[in-house]
Amino acid sequence: MANYYEHLDQTFAALADPTRRAILARLEREDGASVSDLAKPFAIKLPTVMKHLDVLGEAGLITRSKLGRTVTVRLSPEPMKDAMDWLRRYERFWSASLDRLAAYVEAKEAEAGKGGR
Amino acid sequence: MANYYEHLDQTFAALADPTRRAILARLEREDGASVSDLAKPFAIKLPTVMKHLDVLGEAGLITRSKLGRTVTVRLSPEPMKDAMDWLRRYERFWSASLDRLAAYVEAKEAEAGKGGR
Repeated sequence: MANYYEHLDQTFAALADPTRRAILARLEREDGASVSDLAKPFAIKLPTVMKHLDVLGEAGLITRSKLGRTVTVRLSPEPMKDAMDWLRRYERFWSASLDRLAAYVEAKEAEAGKGGR
Repeated sequence: MANYYEHLDQTFAALADPTRRAILARLEREDGASVSDLAKPFAIKLPTVMKHLDVLGEAGLITRSKLGRTVTVRLSPEPMKDAMDWLRRYERFWSASLDRLAAYVEAKEAEAGKGGR
């Protein structure tokens, strides 16, 4: 179980940075990208991008494979499933607020309906 | 939009700690708890718990209200909704793996069915 907790720590920590989230979002759209391609959109130096990739790699969120001089980075989204499962137990709060909102709108509509006649 | 990103940074960073996640999980079950009650299950000092509560408070994940000498902590789960919405785009990967698994099981069953007759 200790592993599961550490794993969640690493996943959430890896997601707590906009550059890392942007890299993951790009890898969600493209099946594999080179490190230099991934670095292009950012106004940060390549070594900084490499550090972000290390964090993502240690969290198990990406894989890197080398062919010749090119390192291809791919998404490995499994750890995000556990993060989402952890968050899912709080869903009832949002649906509860939505239920209250729906009840409010219905009550208002009923009132408006009465008033209009 | 800068706010939205910072907000996600803070939410994910706040979730990257097992003590903070345990506090949130407890507040999910109990509607409000005092700081000393929250601190009890942990083998850490009260000031450390207070620091964790500060991180959760700054991320907007809890509210604190004081009545006399008692501070009551309550869950404020809204920021987790954005975190979950962010993660949701990766869901297709898990359902895709499940689809492949289902196809594999079906193929195996079909094979076993043929072999058995």
